[in-house]
Amino acid sequence: MSRERLIYLPLGGAGEIGMNAYVYGWGKPGEERLIVVDLGVTFPDMDGSPGVDLIFPDISWLEERRDRIDAIFITHAHEDHVGAVGHLWSRLRAPVHARKFTAYHAQRKLEEQGQDPEAVTIAEPWPATVTAGPFTVGFAPISHSIPESAALIIDTPAGRLVHSADFKLDATPLVGEPFDPELWASIGETGVKVLVCDSTNVFAPHPGRSEASLRDPITKLVQNAGGMFVATTFASNVARVKTLAEAGQAAGRSVCLMGRAMRRMIEAAVETGVLTDFPKTIAPEDAVDIPRSNLMLIVTGSQGERRAASAALSRGKYLGLTLAEGDTFLFSSKTIPGNERGVLQIVNAFSELGVDVVDDSSSAYHVSGHANRPDLIEMHRLVNPRIVVPMHGEHRHLREHAKLADEHGRKGVLAPNGTMVDLTGDTPEVVEYVETGRTYLDGSVQIGALDGVVRNRIRMALNGHAIVSLILEDDEPVGDPWVDLVGLPETGQSNAPLSEVIEEDLSQFVGRAGRRTLADDDDLEKELKRIVRQTASNEIGKKPEVTIVISRLS
Amino acid sequence: MSRERLIYLPLGGAGEIGMNAYVYGWGKPGEERLIVVDLGVTFPDMDGSPGVDLIFPDISWLEERRDRIDAIFITHAHEDHVGAVGHLWSRLRAPVHARKFTAYHAQRKLEEQGQDPEAVTIAEPWPATVTAGPFTVGFAPISHSIPESAALIIDTPAGRLVHSADFKLDATPLVGEPFDPELWASIGETGVKVLVCDSTNVFAPHPGRSEASLRDPITKLVQNAGGMFVATTFASNVARVKTLAEAGQAAGRSVCLMGRAMRRMIEAAVETGVLTDFPKTIAPEDAVDIPRSNLMLIVTGSQGERRAASAALSRGKYLGLTLAEGDTFLFSSKTIPGNERGVLQIVNAFSELGVDVVDDSSSAYHVSGHANRPDLIEMHRLVNPRIVVPMHGEHRHLREHAKLADEHGRKGVLAPNGTMVDLTGDTPEVVEYVETGRTYLDGSVQIGALDGVVRNRIRMALNGHAIVSLILEDDEPVGDPWVDLVGLPETGQSNAPLSEVIEEDLSQFVGRAGRRTLADDDDLEKELKRIVRQTASNEIGKKPEVTIVISRLS
Repeated sequence: MSRERLIYLPLGGAGEIGMNAYVYGWGKPGEERLIVVDLGVTFPDMDGSPGVDLIFPDISWLEERRDRIDAIFITHAHEDHVGAVGHLWSRLRAPVHARKFTAYHAQRKLEEQGQDPEAVTIAEPWPATVTAGPFTVGFAPISHSIPESAALIIDTPAGRLVHSADFKLDATPLVGEPFDPELWASIGETGVKVLVCDSTNVFAPHPGRSEASLRDPITKLVQNAGGMFVATTFASNVARVKTLAEAGQAAGRSVCLMGRAMRRMIEAAVETGVLTDFPKTIAPEDAVDIPRSNLMLIVTGSQGERRAASAALSRGKYLGLTLAEGDTFLFSSKTIPGNERGVLQIVNAFSELGVDVVDDSSSAYHVSGHANRPDLIEMHRLVNPRIVVPMHGEHRHLREHAKLADEHGRKGVLAPNGTMVDLTGDTPEVVEYVETGRTYLDGSVQIGALDGVVRNRIRMALNGHAIVSLILEDDEPVGDPWVDLVGLPETGQSNAPLSEVIEEDLSQFVGRAGRRTLADDDDLEKELKRIVRQTASNEIGKKPEVTIVISRLS
Repeated sequence: MSRERLIYLPLGGAGEIGMNAYVYGWGKPGEERLIVVDLGVTFPDMDGSPGVDLIFPDISWLEERRDRIDAIFITHAHEDHVGAVGHLWSRLRAPVHARKFTAYHAQRKLEEQGQDPEAVTIAEPWPATVTAGPFTVGFAPISHSIPESAALIIDTPAGRLVHSADFKLDATPLVGEPFDPELWASIGETGVKVLVCDSTNVFAPHPGRSEASLRDPITKLVQNAGGMFVATTFASNVARVKTLAEAGQAAGRSVCLMGRAMRRMIEAAVETGVLTDFPKTIAPEDAVDIPRSNLMLIVTGSQGERRAASAALSRGKYLGLTLAEGDTFLFSSKTIPGNERGVLQIVNAFSELGVDVVDDSSSAYHVSGHANRPDLIEMHRLVNPRIVVPMHGEHRHLREHAKLADEHGRKGVLAPNGTMVDLTGDTPEVVEYVETGRTYLDGSVQIGALDGVVRNRIRMALNGHAIVSLILEDDEPVGDPWVDLVGLPETGQSNAPLSEVIEEDLSQFVGRAGRRTLADDDDLEKELKRIVRQTASNEIGKKPEVTIVISRLS
């Protein structure tokens, strides 16, 4: 007879920055009632996931236990926390809880996927709570780079947990609630068993800076600029967008939001009441009529996304506007690792147009939304948990954060994706490793990351693709085999067309091949492939992917 | 009757960091005698050049004027300056000049491509000179992150030019000649018309630091480390490798160089006499017998290259060695933009092994090889040219560097790749834009970047590849069309196999198609493609690349 237990299981987010999905459970082993915290996405890249549209955590484990899920809680409206709700909800069908601004986004995402937005219930902030099976969950406001981020205070039969979500210690976040040390100290005093905690900035040695610290530098920068002023930031950083817009207004410029995400985010913030006094803006189609030194654009595309407004502007005319010598472009953002090439491409394109680009290298125009190392120590101190489980980080962040907790006399638990930790007693225990992974949204289809689909794409990209067609009748070749080459050079060492050289070798083989080989598709395919790869290797120093199409007339 | 003129033409390196190739010419327009400075490579990436092995500047312009080239000068042995010599020399066939250590590398590169290494002549350092047509060229030692970097002092009938090559102001570079302000001041006093100058670090606001400043921090770090100590850096940074090896030796560790590039570079440095007192090393196969706390590995792969020693170690056992809890891995290097993902993958893999990773975030374990902004101002001041032509940089670096020159009362010339500048008179003048580009080494074949080969690879990677086979006899279909799918999901919206759904639609079309369509390959192909793309779009939300193979029996 096994006892009831409290478990923690990250399915995404503990081993990467992105794709957050955490599970808590209470009950007898294998019968735990479950809650899910966040269902986020991460983004594909050409290196590992070409052609893929979005990446979700693999939720097979949860789906198999769907009847045991009492609720899904979404901590805030960043894509890596809410982005997969629309795509994955139909596989879980549990009620979704979120604060108003976050709920707005979750509802839109459900609607976009043809799901019922009423699955989402708006949660009032702490001390209000939501009961979900054996759990009582409160949304405690915490400052971050988006309005209404919430840490979850999760009361369980085995004690109180705090799930920090993404946070920073910001007394003046400009939009949304300030960080409230007294609140966290008072929660700490109630006795917190476990803090599951954001690890993003554990390597940043200095205390984080407030959103408000950017107001003066940005205002001055805009004030002193000559031509058109264009700024980009993360659309979801509503406070930053507001700071930028106010700087534009203060400099007597007409402010224009460009890019769908930017306009929609500000609309959402106004509609849900988190933003009350945003400066008046003009419509993008009217921007072209404003003299350039009276114009301020706030645009999407801080990460160099090729389809966003910033990239479009860097390529030339966009909505009738062309940047030119004397204009200024501000990246009020940092470049997320992996996006450097795309961002630099835009910077250089602006340089060619004569535009002055200001980036965050001076630190004057961007602050992070995550708690730095000293801030983490402070949060640990306030909440005062016995156990710290680092989440929201790559392995290196989790490991460093666990060490940091240990150094301060707590118990740090290194639990990357798939590690099920039993938190019932005083000593956390790893009880199981669950298989986790990634699901790709590819066009309109969800495929497994390991299905081989994307692997084949990568192989074609690296090696090119040769297609061999051979027609047989009664196991005798009809005509010669032929070869189509895609993504391969036309000629190689022998200076004859590569396809002809390969066809010549294939014809020779087919001419000599015995009836038994010709009768056996597998044998024949294997041999034809081998010849294509060998000949290509001699001719162009490269072994292509090969598809063999054998047609048998009957 | 046109006058003789002095021209400058960058074919690579002015618009990117990498792939350096600069041309100087003197003579009547269209009849100038030419010299080439550097023939470097740049590196491919999955985003833009999947499957490509190396990237060279397109030297068509030079090749067409091959009879006018008097010499090729190589400033130093970094791949982005010497890397293309082996592959491109046979298209130019001009004598190559370089200092001893650089010449050694150029010769090996020629040999590897089956060319005669005697094309390379070893040049003595300034004040010795080489005469090449109307030019007299001296190799003036200048400090950089590789031994024997040389700035070129180029005397022309129109005055003296200085081509800085890559450099920094390092009074104590540990290996190779220190930066000599007196030499440059004395050259400046002779009256320099043009300084063509490295722009890499124009955005770095503080004076650069010396290679020697790393000795103490690295020595202490190794001294205090417990388990095995592994360090990576650029193999060509011979001084750094020496500092690391000496730190290992001082800590009583056996030092082992791992990775072919690392061992070959040190051999070259010893053989050419630039390195005289390198600590004794052990062979990689003997490392496994040394107790881990007595072992120091210096390995290749500072940029996360998947085949290098550092990546191999991060994946597990390599040459019998496995890193473990308590070991230290030092990146004595910076991550070049674009390589972040690969490097972080290694860092996280080490984190999973429990290895402590030390990177350059503290700045204590790496210094740059390039002159920072204040150093550039100092170099301008010493050489005192009337004109500064920034090179070796992306567009943003060139533009900023030209501005910097202007601010200090010189004439900055913004001349990205393909800009031919007439430097004869007092005012530089852009006289022509030459078409430039990139050549890909793909396996053993050189292809043009715009040939479409790589574009097709990228398309297959993004969209997958569908191959349709249709056999016709006397313009009548023989059997049904069939479809092979590579890199595409097996099923879509209708839950039937995607290939079957497409084949169904194709069969219907072929069944209904008139004889005129069936008789016309182009029409037929167009229609079949359209159907595949339309059906796939409905089924999987994606339009694949399509290859149509029509076989006509006769």
